[in-house]
Amino acid sequence: MTPYEFRQTVRRGEFSGNTAGICEGYIQANLAIMPLKYANDFQKFCDANPKPCPVLAVSEPGSPALPTLGKDIDVRTDVPGFFIYRDGRFVGEERSLAHLWQNDFVVFAIGCSYSFEYILLRAGLPIRHLELGCGVPAYDTNIPNVPAGLFGGNLVVSMRPFKAADAIRAIEITSRHPNVHGSPVHFGDPAEIGIKDLNKADYSDRSEVRAGEFPVFWACGITPQVAIISARLPLGIGHAPGHMLVTDIPLSTIVSE
Amino acid sequence: MTPYEFRQTVRRGEFSGNTAGICEGYIQANLAIMPLKYANDFQKFCDANPKPCPVLAVSEPGSPALPTLGKDIDVRTDVPGFFIYRDGRFVGEERSLAHLWQNDFVVFAIGCSYSFEYILLRAGLPIRHLELGCGVPAYDTNIPNVPAGLFGGNLVVSMRPFKAADAIRAIEITSRHPNVHGSPVHFGDPAEIGIKDLNKADYSDRSEVRAGEFPVFWACGITPQVAIISARLPLGIGHAPGHMLVTDIPLSTIVSE
Repeated sequence: MTPYEFRQTVRRGEFSGNTAGICEGYIQANLAIMPLKYANDFQKFCDANPKPCPVLAVSEPGSPALPTLGKDIDVRTDVPGFFIYRDGRFVGEERSLAHLWQNDFVVFAIGCSYSFEYILLRAGLPIRHLELGCGVPAYDTNIPNVPAGLFGGNLVVSMRPFKAADAIRAIEITSRHPNVHGSPVHFGDPAEIGIKDLNKADYSDRSEVRAGEFPVFWACGITPQVAIISARLPLGIGHAPGHMLVTDIPLSTIVSE
Repeated sequence: MTPYEFRQTVRRGEFSGNTAGICEGYIQANLAIMPLKYANDFQKFCDANPKPCPVLAVSEPGSPALPTLGKDIDVRTDVPGFFIYRDGRFVGEERSLAHLWQNDFVVFAIGCSYSFEYILLRAGLPIRHLELGCGVPAYDTNIPNVPAGLFGGNLVVSMRPFKAADAIRAIEITSRHPNVHGSPVHFGDPAEIGIKDLNKADYSDRSEVRAGEFPVFWACGITPQVAIISARLPLGIGHAPGHMLVTDIPLSTIVSE
């Protein structure tokens, strides 16, 4: 299935799941959607926090299209799930934004680590949550983001366990892909970055770190949603964690090697 | 002091120490010297083991000069120390090769991790053995080299301790410098690669890994000397560990970024 065909499937309401492993070889994107009056500060927040928030594209105000990322994208219907925030609080999940859309909305598409997982797999590295058939576990940390305007909060990270030699390879490879979070921010002791229990992911799915493995933590595209919460926007929207916009852009486009 | 001036100092017998931190910003080289009849196999060994043996230059048979690496280099006198091997055994250390030189000798200059330490320092990473004022600790491992002809043996590694975030940065940076050993081969548990006691380095100096740090292991240019031993050459010569040839080549020359 091509990314376009996959998005049409989502649009028809036939897919509402996690996009881990979907349309391998194409960039997937996190979304942050907010009224135009906050967009400038949010862009500055992304610029100041490039590891969690590498911006791939920004829509025209009021437009749900992202023409540089794919054919006929309508983010209102082409993403399997959304989280809705009002006044700094999560208020619910939606399958479509058709009824919530505002003519002043701006859409930010932000690189997602699901994109680099395909490259890691091709390099022969095992990806645990794909083996387990679930989404990547993600955690709140105690690492503060660089604030910009109203936006702040702490970094969210995703975690993949690797043995040492594979962790080195994963660091090497992801460091060459800054547009999809780049190299990790931490490995080893979760407590050092404020994670109390690896078995209790704050977002997405369960984790499983086996003997001889290190948990390796990458900056995560859920971070912008923490920033939306911290900014107490009257209305802000993100994708449901793990439920990404699948773009038409091949990963090879962003390989800087 | 320029690398040329430093080599002249060595040639005059005024310096016989470790070259860690000497002439920062210039490539330093490991040496492997052997009769021509073994050189082809040794080149194949290096090609098959690029992490420990990245070849920077090879001399003309019988010549102690390496014109592509520096002005007026005479390896017989311009390196602070040599290890001499006969029939697969270490037989002693020499300050000069003047009396041992043979007209069929071929010199291999091989990239050295002292080169990338300068880049790590400039990136703000602490290098423990430089803080301690000693050479980098190096260890025999249980990782077999890819054999070629007579040459084999196990990989030798150098070790630098880092906290997780610094280790990630060090992996990122060194992965871009394959000509000076590239990314590490291991971090964490030394026993996994056959190192019994980190406090007992097999080569060079003492180590000191502090709380919250991981020992990070890079392929080391002492490995060719293990290969010379394994091949039981009638006569083979290496630099004394940590006592490198300092070249005129700026590190920026090999930066592939």
